[in-house]
Amino acid sequence: MVNPVLVEVTRGQRIESRHRGMIAVVDESGSLVWSAGETDALVFPRSACKAIQALPFVESGAADTYGFGDREIALSAASHSGEDAHIALAGQMLARAGRSVEDLECGAHWSTDSKVLIHQARAREAPDALCNNCSGKHAGFVCTCTHQGIGLKGYSGYDHPLQQQIRDAMENVTGAVVGHDVCGTDGCSIPTYAVPLKALAHGFAKMATGTGLEPVRAKAAQRILSACMAEPFYVSGTGRACNTLMSAVPGRVFAKTGAEGVFCAAIPELGLGIALKCEDGTTRAAEAMVSAVLSRLMHADPGASDALAGLAHQTMKNWNGMEVGVIRAVLPN
Amino acid sequence: MVNPVLVEVTRGQRIESRHRGMIAVVDESGSLVWSAGETDALVFPRSACKAIQALPFVESGAADTYGFGDREIALSAASHSGEDAHIALAGQMLARAGRSVEDLECGAHWSTDSKVLIHQARAREAPDALCNNCSGKHAGFVCTCTHQGIGLKGYSGYDHPLQQQIRDAMENVTGAVVGHDVCGTDGCSIPTYAVPLKALAHGFAKMATGTGLEPVRAKAAQRILSACMAEPFYVSGTGRACNTLMSAVPGRVFAKTGAEGVFCAAIPELGLGIALKCEDGTTRAAEAMVSAVLSRLMHADPGASDALAGLAHQTMKNWNGMEVGVIRAVLPN
Repeated sequence: MVNPVLVEVTRGQRIESRHRGMIAVVDESGSLVWSAGETDALVFPRSACKAIQALPFVESGAADTYGFGDREIALSAASHSGEDAHIALAGQMLARAGRSVEDLECGAHWSTDSKVLIHQARAREAPDALCNNCSGKHAGFVCTCTHQGIGLKGYSGYDHPLQQQIRDAMENVTGAVVGHDVCGTDGCSIPTYAVPLKALAHGFAKMATGTGLEPVRAKAAQRILSACMAEPFYVSGTGRACNTLMSAVPGRVFAKTGAEGVFCAAIPELGLGIALKCEDGTTRAAEAMVSAVLSRLMHADPGASDALAGLAHQTMKNWNGMEVGVIRAVLPN
Repeated sequence: MVNPVLVEVTRGQRIESRHRGMIAVVDESGSLVWSAGETDALVFPRSACKAIQALPFVESGAADTYGFGDREIALSAASHSGEDAHIALAGQMLARAGRSVEDLECGAHWSTDSKVLIHQARAREAPDALCNNCSGKHAGFVCTCTHQGIGLKGYSGYDHPLQQQIRDAMENVTGAVVGHDVCGTDGCSIPTYAVPLKALAHGFAKMATGTGLEPVRAKAAQRILSACMAEPFYVSGTGRACNTLMSAVPGRVFAKTGAEGVFCAAIPELGLGIALKCEDGTTRAAEAMVSAVLSRLMHADPGASDALAGLAHQTMKNWNGMEVGVIRAVLPN
C-alpha cells in the first residue's frame, strides 16, 4: 500500500513538495474510527510516547514523594526547547531526589530552536545534559530509580529495571509485544520500540479514558495527560506545536510530538486516541496532520475545530517577510 | 505515477522513514540516459540553479571589470553558511562596485548551520543581509546591474531588467518556457521558475559542455562551474554537502543544492547533467540521492565512485555518539 499525500507545500500557485503519511484514530475499545494510510505499520513512537514512559514515575509514587506538581510531571513527558525555565526545573527535580546533572544519561545538545540556541550560545560555553530536550524525562527517570532504591547507573539501558518497567507499561498500554526485534536506540539513548500505529492510537485512547487499565495506572495516565494539558509550555516550549495545539483548546486535547514525523494525541471528552506518522519523517507535515485530524474530530464544536484547522494551514514567509506559500493538510474524507 | 522510494532512514534493524523522489540524468543532446520517478514534473530549482542565474554576472563582463576570480564567482553561485569568510567576501564584492550591504534586497537571516549560528550569535547582535546564504548571489546581481548601468532599486523584482536577463538565460539553458504561470518567490525574494526536471538536467549538461549555447554563454558557463569546483567552500561551507561532494572528486563534479530537496549536478568529463528532487523536500534525502547517482555514473573510476558512494550512506549518531541508524540511498537499477 502506498500511503496517501496528506500535506502539500505550495509556492506561488504550484505545489512544490508533498508529504505522505498514515493516521490512526482509535476509540477506547480499540476500534479504528478513522484512518489514512497503512495503520498496521510498525512505527517508532520516539518522543511521542513520553507520557507512557512517564507512567512509572507517577505510579511508583516518586512524583508524590518529591512533591511534584503539574509542571514537573509535564516536564517528565516533555521534549522541551531548552529554555531557561525548562533547564532550571529539570535541575530542581534532580535536586529534590538528591541528584544532579551528573546523573543524567541523555547526553548534551544545543537547542534545536534557533531563537533559544542564540540565547544559549550567549549565556554558556557549551550545553550540558540539562539542555537536552529529554532532560525532564531523564530527571523523572532518575527520581523514579532513586525513590524505588534501584541502582541508578545504566538506567538508560535495555536490561535496567527502569527500562523493564517502561517496556511493561508500553506493552500494557498499547497491547503490542515489544522486545529486541523491534527495538532501536533513541536520541537520548533509551530503547524505543516500534509498535503498530493503531496500537499506539489505542494506547492513547486508554491513557485518556482509563479503559482497560488497572486503577493505579489509569489514575497515573490521567494525571500525566492533565498535567501536560495544564502546562503545555513545559511539554515543549515557546511557539512550538505541542504548546500551541494544547493552548488552542485548553484542557481538551493532549498532543505530543516525536522525532521522524510522529505525533500522538488524545481527546478525552470523545474517548479517542490518535497516532500518526509522516512517512518521510518531517515535523512540519506531522504538525499539519495532527492539527487537521484533531480539527475534524472536534467538528461538533466549531470554535475549537476552527482554531485547530488554522494550525493545519500555515503561511510561509521568506527572509523579507513576503508570503511565498503555505503548508496545508489535505486529509481524505 | 507514484515516485519511488529512493532513500531509507533506519533505526536499529528497521526502516524508520522513507523518502520518494525523482532523478533525471540527461546528456548534452537532451537524451534521458537514466531516470527514476516522474522526470516531466515541474520543479522549482530554487538555489540549485544559481550557476544559471550567475550567467549575466560573467557574460556582461561585470566579473572581469571588478577583477573577480574563482572565489567571487563561486560565491555568486553559492548558498553559503554565513561563515566569516563568506560574509567578508560578499562585502568586498559590493565594495568593488562602490556598493554596500544597504543595496542588498535578499533580507537578513541567521545561519541555518548551528555551529555557524553559535559563532554569529556571540559575534553580533543581529544578522544583516551579508549573512543571508544568498548574499554572494545578490552581490553578483548588484555588480551586474552597476556594471551595466541598470538602475539598482528593485533588482529582485520580476520586471526588472536583471531578472529578465536571468529569465532569458533560464529559458535558453533549459529549453523550457518560463513566465508568471510557473513563477514563485524564492527565499531571497527573486523569482523562481518551475521547469521540467529533465529540462533542468539538460541545462546542466549544456552548462558543463557548452553544447547548444552561444560561445559567450558557453564560456561563462564553463567558468562558473570551474570556479565552483575549484572553490567548493565558497559555494556552501564547512562540512556542507556541496563542499564535501565537490572535494571528494576535485574538479570532476559540479553539485549544487536547492531548498525543498533539489539538487543539480554535472559531470563534465561524461557530458552529463543531473537534476533531482526529493518529493517531500528533505535535504538529507536529496544529498543521499545526488551522491548515489553521481557514484553510479562514475562507475568506470572505482576510486571516485567509492568516494561518492560513501556519501550516499551516512551513519546517524545520537547525543551520546551512539550509532542509531543510517541514511542510505536505494536507487533502482
